[in-house]
Amino acid sequence: MRKQKKVSESYTIMTELVLPNDTNTLHNLMGGRMMHWMDIVSAIAAQKHSNRIVVTASVDNVSFKQSPKLGNVITLEAQVTRAFNSSMEVHINVYAEDIPAGSKIKTNEAFFTFVAVDQMGSPIDVPEAVPGTPEEIELFDGALRRRQLRLILSGRMKPHDAAELKALFQLED
Amino acid sequence: MRKQKKVSESYTIMTELVLPNDTNTLHNLMGGRMMHWMDIVSAIAAQKHSNRIVVTASVDNVSFKQSPKLGNVITLEAQVTRAFNSSMEVHINVYAEDIPAGSKIKTNEAFFTFVAVDQMGSPIDVPEAVPGTPEEIELFDGALRRRQLRLILSGRMKPHDAAELKALFQLED
Amino acid sequence: MRKQKKVSESYTIMTELVLPNDTNTLHNLMGGRMMHWMDIVSAIAAQKHSNRIVVTASVDNVSFKQSPKLGNVITLEAQVTRAFNSSMEVHINVYAEDIPAGSKIKTNEAFFTFVAVDQMGSPIDVPEAVPGTPEEIELFDGALRRRQLRLILSGRMKPHDAAELKALFQLED
Amino acid sequence: MRKQKKVSESYTIMTELVLPNDTNTLHNLMGGRMMHWMDIVSAIAAQKHSNRIVVTASVDNVSFKQSPKLGNVITLEAQVTRAFNSSMEVHINVYAEDIPAGSKIKTNEAFFTFVAVDQMGSPIDVPEAVPGTPEEIELFDGALRRRQLRLILSGRMKPHDAAELKALFQLED
Amino acid sequence: MRKQKKVSESYTIMTELVLPNDTNTLHNLMGGRMMHWMDIVSAIAAQKHSNRIVVTASVDNVSFKQSPKLGNVITLEAQVTRAFNSSMEVHINVYAEDIPAGSKIKTNEAFFTFVAVDQMGSPIDVPEAVPGTPEEIELFDGALRRRQLRLILSGRMKPHDAAELKALFQLED
Amino acid sequence: MRKQKKVSESYTIMTELVLPNDTNTLHNLMGGRMMHWMDIVSAIAAQKHSNRIVVTASVDNVSFKQSPKLGNVITLEAQVTRAFNSSMEVHINVYAEDIPAGSKIKTNEAFFTFVAVDQMGSPIDVPEAVPGTPEEIELFDGALRRRQLRLILSGRMKPHDAAELKALFQLED
Repeated sequence: MRKQKKVSESYTIMTELVLPNDTNTLHNLMGGRMMHWMDIVSAIAAQKHSNRIVVTASVDNVSFKQSPKLGNVITLEAQVTRAFNSSMEVHINVYAEDIPAGSKIKTNEAFFTFVAVDQMGSPIDVPEAVPGTPEEIELFDGALRRRQLRLILSGRMKPHDAAELKALFQLED
Repeated sequence: MRKQKKVSESYTIMTELVLPNDTNTLHNLMGGRMMHWMDIVSAIAAQKHSNRIVVTASVDNVSFKQSPKLGNVITLEAQVTRAFNSSMEVHINVYAEDIPAGSKIKTNEAFFTFVAVDQMGSPIDVPEAVPGTPEEIELFDGALRRRQLRLILSGRMKPHDAAELKALFQLED
Repeated sequence: MRKQKKVSESYTIMTELVLPNDTNTLHNLMGGRMMHWMDIVSAIAAQKHSNRIVVTASVDNVSFKQSPKLGNVITLEAQVTRAFNSSMEVHINVYAEDIPAGSKIKTNEAFFTFVAVDQMGSPIDVPEAVPGTPEEIELFDGALRRRQLRLILSGRMKPHDAAELKALFQLED
Repeated sequence: MRKQKKVSESYTIMTELVLPNDTNTLHNLMGGRMMHWMDIVSAIAAQKHSNRIVVTASVDNVSFKQSPKLGNVITLEAQVTRAFNSSMEVHINVYAEDIPAGSKIKTNEAFFTFVAVDQMGSPIDVPEAVPGTPEEIELFDGALRRRQLRLILSGRMKPHDAAELKALFQLED
Repeated sequence: MRKQKKVSESYTIMTELVLPNDTNTLHNLMGGRMMHWMDIVSAIAAQKHSNRIVVTASVDNVSFKQSPKLGNVITLEAQVTRAFNSSMEVHINVYAEDIPAGSKIKTNEAFFTFVAVDQMGSPIDVPEAVPGTPEEIELFDGALRRRQLRLILSGRMKPHDAAELKALFQLED
Repeated sequence: MRKQKKVSESYTIMTELVLPNDTNTLHNLMGGRMMHWMDIVSAIAAQKHSNRIVVTASVDNVSFKQSPKLGNVITLEAQVTRAFNSSMEVHINVYAEDIPAGSKIKTNEAFFTFVAVDQMGSPIDVPEAVPGTPEEIELFDGALRRRQLRLILSGRMKPHDAAELKALFQLED
């Protein structure tokens, strides 16, 4: 039987300071730097779940509502939501804090998917991810729908085969 | 009347060498570094279209099929596909080349969206983007559908209001 | 009366991945990079306590027992121990994890001191730091002794004026 | 008999320019970047003395009196003071120069200790360090006292066993 | 017979954004960063021509007329001009663009020479470089004269043996 | 009368460690990184002579005979050779040391030219540079010939007007 592991065991926090080279000419954090940090924090969460080297398989749609500023403290929290054979979906929340101003806002939320690989780079199975809290269960359930969307968007599944996702567009039928 | 500009005027090429610090312990390029480069090349394309400072608004689903290796030459090509008021969608193709081995593969394709802003950071209108070649027209047409998906995924549109996208899931009906 | 703040409100976690450029030719993390990270995590903790810009005032003796390796995940935990007018002592614990090997060791422990400054760079008073748990109280109490040692080592106090510290060397008298 | 080497043979100068990413929001050099540079210059001095790969063993108390500014030229001078079996103490002086303003100040002084290791990472003996000038002799003599303090602070020596250090606290007895 | 390859097959474009750490205190791009980029783009062009690992052999006189500014987009275009046994001369044009201001200027022109090496680092022959357009033919022809100057300047040829170059100084005789 | 300053007052030493990201796939230092360091050390020497902000004006032909390796210690020594109104020529010697192997070689020699500028970026006169030792006098004398070559190569002087340089090609006449 496949090994089981609580999703909370993968929980990872990363803190970054927005430095001059991370910003554009308006002194706002560039989106690409943020995604670089998201990738590192979520890769570490996926490593913790699988105890393996992991490679980024995909990034779901990320939207950038508010730009953190030069000097802000960025906190990234990542946790595995669900595992599928050798792949793991990781959920990331990002907060920007202007400490002297005493303000803290949530700036981003994202889902990254990783594949665990062995020393030769071949995919290898990972433990089952077991959610505990209601929020973890909700993320676990939604992972199936997001996975179908990913497969459709990368051309590996046809839209009418995506049962969970299709329901979303036909609620009123 | 709104100013018009050919999408091809925004065409931008960026070339990067995969260095040790860009790689994981298997000497593969990390996904976050790739997204950092994608963000820069597509921001420059959006700047060229708008002649404005731009900020990343969203990144569509990106999938990573093959990992470039240490020493590979990465070529990123970006071009605006369509403009909507102050926002622009940019299409990016990425290629990895192992020059001594004589191999070159396409590793990624992505869509980034940017908003043009003035010196105060407020959104400002950009020229209309005019496609020319059949491929540019196809990307221009698809931009509407991708925009609906973005709005749904970021919670700003309800699925049953996304006419273009809905059609995709009901082809067989 | 001076404002009070729990030391636990300054708690900060930072996670870093050991990359090639952080290592020497034996693929061990260089001490200087580690201290760079310690400085950032503890500066953020001091900022959280004071809601001010902070500058590093001193670093106490740090010893490096085991060197983290390339690919290790480094976790740094920092928390203010005590505040003196405009200065704050921060305690840092550092752990190195070899995730594929399933091992995690504590590699360092350190005390950094910061001064809160205003926009002109002048020192400014910070809230009193209130310890809660037995461990926090022990760190709070020891802060006085460490401060005397710092003042002696930087030539601003004479050894025989350091009552708390002197006791340490005369236990058997 | 153990090989002997003059301490002056390890003398190393490093010059750095304070760039935007090295500074905080007040445009002052961050302490962690300074310690990173101190570690590199002193590691090179220890390498020159031992002709070996070296790893940082400890950093003595460092105090930061004045912060160098963006654009300053930083000069770091390092020299081995004394060797103990496989370890070497290195003394570092740091100066910050505002060249257009014609000012130069000493900003820091520090002691770093390194261990020489072989290709497997095991400690290996280094030549005896022979001081020449009066200043070198003073640093050589003080090395024993600083070493006792280091051992006490890292819990490897009891205070009442530190003869040289104890004397410091009992001058008036 | 030696393999032939069109010079245009080596054509490489690189795009860089001038970030804070690339600039001096007047916010101008530092010359050394520019040369770093020139070296990378021209090394990639030389790799494309030779399908080999290449090492920089020499850089011809480079003059810096106008300094790009913070936030400028730098475009570097490189192409092999001529090959000599294991070495290749690469021509580089550099442009700086202030996109919001709508200005684009040519800032530099340079010639870098590379040697193709095998896995052991030993020089190895490269294909002959065949020019096509009039401009490519002119660069091909001038390569001989520039090579003589390089050999003289590095002390490997005496001035009076440099027939092509000598002519340049004796036109009026 | 113009202020005078000894060339030796501008003497600057910089020490760098070759890290993974500075090297190509053969673990040799990339030429562009070396030029980046040369530019910084010589800019500091020119700053010391002029007590001004300086910008790189030109780089003379640099040849790379031997490539430093990963882990080598690089020492760069720079000193002003001569000043012309607002410009200064700086001479740089570079050495690479493999400390564990006990070898040290001279790898490069170069001449960089800088222009001193005021806060608005306009050229401003610098002190006269006075050579002392025979070697300094030789470098001072050669500066005129190198300057003519620079002016010819950048198209600002015609070859037959370069008296000093012309002599070099007509020695035997």
